[in-house]
Amino acid sequence: MSYLSHLECSECGQTYSAHELHNLCLKCSSPLWVRYDLDRACRELDRDRCASRPASLWRWAELLPIDDLTQRIDLGEGGTPLLRIDRLSAQLGLSEVWLKDEGRNPTGSFKARGMAMAVTRAKVLGVKEFVVPTAGNAGGAAAAYVTRAGLTIHVYMPKDAPPANINECRAVGADVHLVNGLINDAGRLAAADAKEHGWFDLATLKEPYRIEGKKTMGYEIAQDLQWELPDVIVYPAGGGTGLIGIWKAFEELETLGWIGSKRPRMVAVQPIGCQPIVTAFEQDLLACELHQNAHTIAAGLRVPKPLGDRMMLRAIRASAGMAIAVSDNDIVKMTEAMLHVEGISLAYEGAATLVAARELHDQGWLKPQEKIVCLNTGAGWKNP
Amino acid sequence: MSYLSHLECSECGQTYSAHELHNLCLKCSSPLWVRYDLDRACRELDRDRCASRPASLWRWAELLPIDDLTQRIDLGEGGTPLLRIDRLSAQLGLSEVWLKDEGRNPTGSFKARGMAMAVTRAKVLGVKEFVVPTAGNAGGAAAAYVTRAGLTIHVYMPKDAPPANINECRAVGADVHLVNGLINDAGRLAAADAKEHGWFDLATLKEPYRIEGKKTMGYEIAQDLQWELPDVIVYPAGGGTGLIGIWKAFEELETLGWIGSKRPRMVAVQPIGCQPIVTAFEQDLLACELHQNAHTIAAGLRVPKPLGDRMMLRAIRASAGMAIAVSDNDIVKMTEAMLHVEGISLAYEGAATLVAARELHDQGWLKPQEKIVCLNTGAGWKNP
Repeated sequence: MSYLSHLECSECGQTYSAHELHNLCLKCSSPLWVRYDLDRACRELDRDRCASRPASLWRWAELLPIDDLTQRIDLGEGGTPLLRIDRLSAQLGLSEVWLKDEGRNPTGSFKARGMAMAVTRAKVLGVKEFVVPTAGNAGGAAAAYVTRAGLTIHVYMPKDAPPANINECRAVGADVHLVNGLINDAGRLAAADAKEHGWFDLATLKEPYRIEGKKTMGYEIAQDLQWELPDVIVYPAGGGTGLIGIWKAFEELETLGWIGSKRPRMVAVQPIGCQPIVTAFEQDLLACELHQNAHTIAAGLRVPKPLGDRMMLRAIRASAGMAIAVSDNDIVKMTEAMLHVEGISLAYEGAATLVAARELHDQGWLKPQEKIVCLNTGAGWKNP
Repeated sequence: MSYLSHLECSECGQTYSAHELHNLCLKCSSPLWVRYDLDRACRELDRDRCASRPASLWRWAELLPIDDLTQRIDLGEGGTPLLRIDRLSAQLGLSEVWLKDEGRNPTGSFKARGMAMAVTRAKVLGVKEFVVPTAGNAGGAAAAYVTRAGLTIHVYMPKDAPPANINECRAVGADVHLVNGLINDAGRLAAADAKEHGWFDLATLKEPYRIEGKKTMGYEIAQDLQWELPDVIVYPAGGGTGLIGIWKAFEELETLGWIGSKRPRMVAVQPIGCQPIVTAFEQDLLACELHQNAHTIAAGLRVPKPLGDRMMLRAIRASAGMAIAVSDNDIVKMTEAMLHVEGISLAYEGAATLVAARELHDQGWLKPQEKIVCLNTGAGWKNP
């Protein structure tokens, strides 16, 4: 049984019922947090009981917004491996780097976690027809989960999105719209059509539940490292739901008493060609400005103004973290190095985290002995 | 600590030390079984203790041939999901079909399980350089694990193997030889070069440990179904190591007292264009003859004379099972149906099992209420 309690605006604090469909805050148009009765969970729920269940994100059922697990739309999401990569780490000048391989999720990316949750929750609340704007992987994940649910979806993506992403949406029968522009342009069109036709909009942070799927990456990292968080987490930031979700997970785990107060420093990595978070971080801003002429080989990071900018920047700063930009050229070279040295195929987005780790070590910001977790958010076979 | 005991010839019963490198039986050239001290394991090992460990095939450590888990070559193999596919099942006339989605393994196929074990064991016993003949996926898996181990590998595959397979071997730096012919031709060349250069031959069943990785599919099916085996398991038979391994797993589990004596009927599915096992089964033969002019879209099933033919045929018959051929056309249509109905992407080999399930239901061999597990041995993105 879920300890789901209510929804709460991330900016103005307005609360809403979790048993009605909601997108953004009706007062201030900011994203909503999902809140739980963690006091009760703290008394009743045992971390080892959760941890011993079958390895999927549903092992954390009580901390997810689903009351009846038989209603879940599942393709076997979560429970991804955390791999130690000693030989590549040595080349970076580091001694303990772990790779959370999210490419092993259904549809080959971490987007599966968020979509499993959002589609399940929306179906429970009566949604029949969905729309999602996407830079790439979110479209494929949404299309697969909505299809698994027996429902209908419209996907809006840049016309130069990776072919693997366009194909995976069409393969399951999604209605694909190729858009002149980037994900923010796709988002505008999707929102307009959602309003016109009554479709439910699954856009990043425009509904509250994708974060709840993504936060399970944080639970898993904590469990896999025996409830002792690493020193640093390096995350490739596009929309940023994963970074926000992981940070939320750690807050929840501490409230539950499952971890102590130690937090990793959270690092957001962006490509030089699209680095709105890095710019805002360096300029001490609370929110991003639109990154003009965004371009990068890492399609998932081509998000010129993420809706979750404030939430991301808060987490990075609260953790004494960092935002750093890396070059596409280094990303491609790191993808190849990882294949040759460890036999592991990374998404370009994932390779960016290792480039960042090397640069942060060279700058002295990362100490050689620190325990570092890098997120590989997708499978290498989806790279263009 | 492993209960590893010794190696034993599958035909003549000759025993060998498990602490030396072995390929086939030195007396009769048949494959070797790996044997354990199951009496001791029965007294000391608890199934729930194994089952509560992190979800990878290494949770069964005591029943694997590795004494020191820190030596394992791992990419996060095993622990794949078992998905119930109710809407597609209904279209087949069946009520309870489960899909074991092996496409979620590293390198996108079940070959990862066998290679993780074989490469780990060979490295422990001193091997530095490997060779593997492959119809496709085994090459990619072997190349990734050998690379992860920091060692060297030569891959021999048909020149018309799926491009995804050729590319994944080259990507990690394997030495790829494209062969005029099929896997049996590749196997001859690989064996000759192995002998000449002192490479260790990882060919299917030519070393004892790939079965040990594959048998963990059987352990997982048993655990996921609460230690009550299904009525039928449908398996796409190329080399057949998986079918043989699953059958071995069930024997071990019964000896351990973890399951009862109930066994599923084992079904081997082959394409019409390459059906040596089906022919031998129908003609009541103990071994296969070479299937002439083998051709099929399911590259992994293009094995015209599997070395494990006797072991497979014994398991099928002992289980009151079946061998059945399906058409490439039906395989392709089923792959598309699965995408549209369940949002799941199957390897052609995996789709073949669902075609077989439909045909066996139509023939009355499968009863509508039976509990059926179909093996999807690879990821759909690797299909040509």
